[in-house]
Amino acid sequence: MADPLTNLIRTYHELNAAVVDELDEQPSALEFMRHVAANRPFVVPRAIRDWPAFQKWDANYLRHLMGREEVKVAITSLGNADAVVESKEDDSLVFVEPYEVFEPFGEFLDSIQRSSSSTTEVGHVKYAQTQNDNLRHEYASLLPDVPTDIPFARIALGQNADAINLWIGDDRSTTALHKDNYENIYCQIRGEKDFVLLSPVEMPCVNEQLLARGRYAPVPPAADAATTFYDGGKYDDSGVEALEVQLDSDAERVPVATWDPDEPEKRTTAWSSLAKPLRVTLREGDMLYLPCFWYHKVSQRVGDEGFVCAVNYWYDCSFEGSSFASHSFVRDVYLAEQRRPEYPELKVGGETEGG
Amino acid sequence: MADPLTNLIRTYHELNAAVVDELDEQPSALEFMRHVAANRPFVVPRAIRDWPAFQKWDANYLRHLMGREEVKVAITSLGNADAVVESKEDDSLVFVEPYEVFEPFGEFLDSIQRSSSSTTEVGHVKYAQTQNDNLRHEYASLLPDVPTDIPFARIALGQNADAINLWIGDDRSTTALHKDNYENIYCQIRGEKDFVLLSPVEMPCVNEQLLARGRYAPVPPAADAATTFYDGGKYDDSGVEALEVQLDSDAERVPVATWDPDEPEKRTTAWSSLAKPLRVTLREGDMLYLPCFWYHKVSQRVGDEGFVCAVNYWYDCSFEGSSFASHSFVRDVYLAEQRRPEYPELKVGGETEGG
Ligand SMILES: O=C(O)CCC(=O)C(=O)O
Ligand SMILES: O=C(O)CCC(=O)C(=O)O
Repeated sequence: MADPLTNLIRTYHELNAAVVDELDEQPSALEFMRHVAANRPFVVPRAIRDWPAFQKWDANYLRHLMGREEVKVAITSLGNADAVVESKEDDSLVFVEPYEVFEPFGEFLDSIQRSSSSTTEVGHVKYAQTQNDNLRHEYASLLPDVPTDIPFARIALGQNADAINLWIGDDRSTTALHKDNYENIYCQIRGEKDFVLLSPVEMPCVNEQLLARGRYAPVPPAADAATTFYDGGKYDDSGVEALEVQLDSDAERVPVATWDPDEPEKRTTAWSSLAKPLRVTLREGDMLYLPCFWYHKVSQRVGDEGFVCAVNYWYDCSFEGSSFASHSFVRDVYLAEQRRPEYPELKVGGETEGG
Repeated sequence: MADPLTNLIRTYHELNAAVVDELDEQPSALEFMRHVAANRPFVVPRAIRDWPAFQKWDANYLRHLMGREEVKVAITSLGNADAVVESKEDDSLVFVEPYEVFEPFGEFLDSIQRSSSSTTEVGHVKYAQTQNDNLRHEYASLLPDVPTDIPFARIALGQNADAINLWIGDDRSTTALHKDNYENIYCQIRGEKDFVLLSPVEMPCVNEQLLARGRYAPVPPAADAATTFYDGGKYDDSGVEALEVQLDSDAERVPVATWDPDEPEKRTTAWSSLAKPLRVTLREGDMLYLPCFWYHKVSQRVGDEGFVCAVNYWYDCSFEGSSFASHSFVRDVYLAEQRRPEYPELKVGGETEGG
């Protein structure tokens, strides 16, 4: 008999096909609610082709509306904002946040496009990815080009979007495997994104670890060399020198998924091989429903004009019912398994060794 | 740190109030789907007052339409069809099904009404409770008085009712704690029912045990006395002599909830005290949504004419998503806990005993 976690993951896969449902058109609120109830993703190809954003957002237009606005840009060495980075000195892993700068949108877009057209080595990787409702704040000039809400989601969930986020970057940025407490409607405007999805019951596969926190920072830092390790970029076009990871030794450790479905033999747990990642590519004009608590890893390819651009809507998850409690339970059982000592076989009524 | 099962049940109760939601009127399909998604019950007082069944079903009318039809009746000593019965000889428990007879509906209703009006000891307990879509078969003459489906459920779930069941009995019948693989819309026509509900995550509280099966049968049985035990009725008005439980020693054992939320100190598990049973009384004309996989125990009180009558609609559960897999997981972990040997404390690098 397999252990309960193995049974759980197997049963889940027996009951759920390892594909993302494809809908012909946007669902009704009721149809959407069925997907929410099942906590299952779907994709709607060409769903947002009538959005002004889809029709108008080329580099000129964006520069025209946003050119002089200062926007927050995440800068990393390898396109790895909010990611696990391996220390060069020992085997330890660190959860690394990006170096953040403000720059005029026009300059930011220039360097994204320049990096995409360059055939030689380019500088640090930039990504506008603030995830703080930026489309209703920093990028408010672009807001009229997208719906203020996704009607089927607003009606089904009985709430307005909690955040609307704009994402702009180049090929090199990847968002590492993580999960969010949001129902996510993700809409692709320019370029393409590859999503790799894992259901919440696959938590035992992702090798969650408590990691120290760090942040990319320009070299030379003021900090003590012993608390930093180099993972630097090689060339710089942004006024930022080489970047290195600065450990924040005061910060509390954070639980981070360290398994990468694209390198499935590395950093495995006893359950990683049971994972059946769903893969879906969003093309220009497509919409994805990414349900609460699902793990997702996202990489991207630029469109004709050398940038990737997407908009997503986050709606608060419901914590009613048993879903959230059940997911926490999976985690608890997983953690208890990690802690459980491996007892020696007990010998009944007999020989002992040593003593 | 509490064990994972304790955490699960506590987290569930922190996130969900221990009351049954009360709606002012029947929900829309979308509102219903929200309850299905949360797997949470609700009651709608007075929801079915416009049903012909609610307006017309008195004893005369029922006798008029159904009087000569043969109907299947469950007979037990104590009103305990499909229930756990304790052996008088040892402590063992048996899952006992009722003795079943066919009789003309008129005679059945007579004896229900007679038992309700009698102040002295009455005979065996009868209950029309076949749960096999009986309203569309045995009781088809009554079918035109109820809707062919519950519209909000049919639309939300995208299916027709799998079964429509009629229940007729007296005060003495109780349906023991159990769960079904159905979304259940339960409608009270005459008399009242008290429901005690437990969510699926409270599985560790209900002390599920693998029990031998038995069936009530008239005495004297042909069977070997060693495989039967007496639990008999005292007086008989139905041509049935005293009943005793006949063990079916060939039948496979069945998993049965043996904890009774109304006797919470008996047959407990380590988790029973964490249960927070929801209690709701259905009065004449009320409707209850009882979600898939919820444990329920049901007792009843007759209406003015000395009988209880209800109609319920069963819709198939969805096994998509993680709910079913998560509930099986709770059960698996619970069973693994039962099996886990209690290891002695390990002594590190030292003395051993015995040997
Ligand atoms: O587009 C990306 O890079 C990541 C998207 C994401 O993580 C999200 O929408 O939650
Ligand atoms: O009404 C009863 O006695 C029991 C009802 C029940 O168990 C059900 O509807 O599933």
